[in-house]
Amino acid sequence: MIFIKRIIITLIITCPFLLNSQTDLEKSDFINNIYNEALSNGESYEWLEYLSNDIGHRLSGSVNAERAVKWGRNELIKISDKVWLQPVMVPKWVRGAPEYAHIESTSGKTISVPILALGGSISTPSIGIIANVVEVKSFNDLDKLGEEKVKGKIVFYNRPMDPTIINTFEAYGQTVNQRTQGAKYAAQYGAVGVIVRSMTTASDDFPHTGSMYYDDLPLNKRIPAAAISTNGADLLSSMLSLNKEVKFYFRQNSKNFPDQLSHNVIAEIKGSKYPDEIIVVGGHLDSWDVGDGSHDDGAGIVQSMEVLRIFNSLGYKPNRTIRVVLFMNEENGLRGGNKYAEIAKEKNENHFFALESDAGGFTPRGFSFDTSVEEFELIEPWVEYFKDYALENFFLGGSGADIGPLKDGRVILSGLRPDPQRYFDYHHAPSDTFDKINRRELELGAAAMTALIFLMDNHKL
Amino acid sequence: MIFIKRIIITLIITCPFLLNSQTDLEKSDFINNIYNEALSNGESYEWLEYLSNDIGHRLSGSVNAERAVKWGRNELIKISDKVWLQPVMVPKWVRGAPEYAHIESTSGKTISVPILALGGSISTPSIGIIANVVEVKSFNDLDKLGEEKVKGKIVFYNRPMDPTIINTFEAYGQTVNQRTQGAKYAAQYGAVGVIVRSMTTASDDFPHTGSMYYDDLPLNKRIPAAAISTNGADLLSSMLSLNKEVKFYFRQNSKNFPDQLSHNVIAEIKGSKYPDEIIVVGGHLDSWDVGDGSHDDGAGIVQSMEVLRIFNSLGYKPNRTIRVVLFMNEENGLRGGNKYAEIAKEKNENHFFALESDAGGFTPRGFSFDTSVEEFELIEPWVEYFKDYALENFFLGGSGADIGPLKDGRVILSGLRPDPQRYFDYHHAPSDTFDKINRRELELGAAAMTALIFLMDNHKL
Repeated sequence: MIFIKRIIITLIITCPFLLNSQTDLEKSDFINNIYNEALSNGESYEWLEYLSNDIGHRLSGSVNAERAVKWGRNELIKISDKVWLQPVMVPKWVRGAPEYAHIESTSGKTISVPILALGGSISTPSIGIIANVVEVKSFNDLDKLGEEKVKGKIVFYNRPMDPTIINTFEAYGQTVNQRTQGAKYAAQYGAVGVIVRSMTTASDDFPHTGSMYYDDLPLNKRIPAAAISTNGADLLSSMLSLNKEVKFYFRQNSKNFPDQLSHNVIAEIKGSKYPDEIIVVGGHLDSWDVGDGSHDDGAGIVQSMEVLRIFNSLGYKPNRTIRVVLFMNEENGLRGGNKYAEIAKEKNENHFFALESDAGGFTPRGFSFDTSVEEFELIEPWVEYFKDYALENFFLGGSGADIGPLKDGRVILSGLRPDPQRYFDYHHAPSDTFDKINRRELELGAAAMTALIFLMDNHKL
Repeated sequence: MIFIKRIIITLIITCPFLLNSQTDLEKSDFINNIYNEALSNGESYEWLEYLSNDIGHRLSGSVNAERAVKWGRNELIKISDKVWLQPVMVPKWVRGAPEYAHIESTSGKTISVPILALGGSISTPSIGIIANVVEVKSFNDLDKLGEEKVKGKIVFYNRPMDPTIINTFEAYGQTVNQRTQGAKYAAQYGAVGVIVRSMTTASDDFPHTGSMYYDDLPLNKRIPAAAISTNGADLLSSMLSLNKEVKFYFRQNSKNFPDQLSHNVIAEIKGSKYPDEIIVVGGHLDSWDVGDGSHDDGAGIVQSMEVLRIFNSLGYKPNRTIRVVLFMNEENGLRGGNKYAEIAKEKNENHFFALESDAGGFTPRGFSFDTSVEEFELIEPWVEYFKDYALENFFLGGSGADIGPLKDGRVILSGLRPDPQRYFDYHHAPSDTFDKINRRELELGAAAMTALIFLMDNHKL
């Protein structure tokens, strides 16, 4: 770019502008203050630097997860009226010794490939598993092959995420059953193990882990499952296309332990007008046990904390009670989200609104709302408040996994929707690290969340 | 994120939908083909990998710039009817030996800081310059200090880019005169050198170079100028606030050489209906001499080439002549852009439309148009074609530096507008490297450009 760019003159040609009353303009001004505060004095980036670099990855049941709980509590005490830990029993799965895998083209001739055990998977025998491979793209493919062709073999699920789908989350949704249900499905036909193509559109050497479930499959039928990097999957597939007798060897040492006590971290500022109406903002504090979980979901944690900090800093006294919830165990159990909703129901709490950030710390593009069409029609015009900040989409859709259990036909649920192009490059992989975070993108997300909560706090007074 | 996200249901609540005629739907289908081709079989990422990693940075007049010309020509020959090199004389400035700088708090006590000579700057004496420092935020500050307080000193321009401005290009436009004009301005008051805060909102250790101009300042009045990293600038500023007697030392070895022959690379596909009406798409092939120029502007180069490849691959025969132009010397002279326009005028060529990509290979958010309001009103409704691809802004504004000289009151000019949050993290810095490119973001930009050119090619037939 040259030394002087002509300043871009934005000409707003859009639907009739909605912000014209005095109240609307006051709200608009306050939102401007929110953005200025977030972009000038934001703390989210420094918080995330600590969470990612000083604590690191934090799978439920790990020492790091407990360190993260303690850190979250200590930081939230500084910016809220009250902080407490909500006990919740969480699964404990441990990866153990590093995995190893290779492709054996002919006896003794091997090429190693990067794998990661899927979360929840059992171990292989300590000497590993070696077997012929059947490559499939779907459960339907597997049904067609049947027990005869699958028994004793390793099933290789190789359906890629569709690169032509603009919203990568949708492409993910269309492929992830290979990972979650693949082992259970293959075990029915007598497979001895499962290798799953990593859920990413990138071609690289990072395997992407994630949860898998055996459900009610008897213990003696369970088979180990691992993710292979996309480059590894492409290599295996091309070798198989040349020679069906290619063998795959893998070894992993993962183990499930009894459930363990952990906590959701909850902080609140009491509402001045309707203290019994609760607005929740949160993300999940746990992460997978690789990388440092900066995008999934360290970003959502620090953005949620930033909502309280910005309100404090601007001297804003909310009408309703604002709660930040750092949920535990989203990744492999959703125990924290379920527990929070269970306790809320027990206590007969009245949740007015809940917002989750769990789609990465990228430039915010919109908010999805899980509510009635009638309610959405009241909210949708607010998108006008965000147009100066390049956030342009309000739409009906899912919200977030942790706040989902709150759904009761009354509470309005929402999810922050950042630009989705880079998310699956890092998702559940060793590459989800702090250097992938852009400070401004993270802060813009926090500002957008704060602005939406401000508007909700002034909704239906 | 949990194992199964609910698929987001997009409910389109927008201005009345415009695409209802058969022609509109056919265009919409073709645009869908363009996106599918770009995202499934795109070549832009591989091209950029070569340009960035095998050629590297390519300042005008360097051997690498000539390698890039040769590479561009060879690649374009494969996908166009005709390729030619357009001769243009370009400046040749050479950085020379690596720069060195330190802050001297008291005699002999020094802290080194990262600097880069500004492009076009003269050298320091070989032993370097050491002097007291005056810190200013603006030329106005400098005027107030006057010759008495500036003479014999190093002027330190430290006005940061305003982080609260959402469009970073606008913040850049408000600060960059420190870099381009700072030395000339300070020399008037007898300063011996100039240190400029890097033009970035990031706090890090990368100095960002860029062009500076002495204009008509006599040779014996010229003083050397360098960029300092933002961390370095903050350190220097805080040390000065404690002690005004702090000294700054810097040494650089840069040199201006006589102009040298280089080339714009031009490729075209002849139009079938109006061969004399020309549509240009391009970016600039030169880069600064640090990093590898992946975002500035390798991305724009390969996206422009991808337009032709996609048309070929889809068997599209354009109505008008489509030209890809890889402009030389945008960064420190704009000689390529000026030469192209000059020759076009000489030959009385009729340019119908020109599009430039020179704002990074990030997720495309919109297009700016430099044209009349009447013409823009015809174009603006096309934004509907792009909404399925998450590109949502058409607006009146600047286009691109290289195509700017074509402006004649008739030709429609346009610039791709990607998400601007990350651009200045890398701009003109050693950190502008291929690993900062996301394949999907780059490809979405190429697809959007191809779609816009397709629409323009079918406009006013």
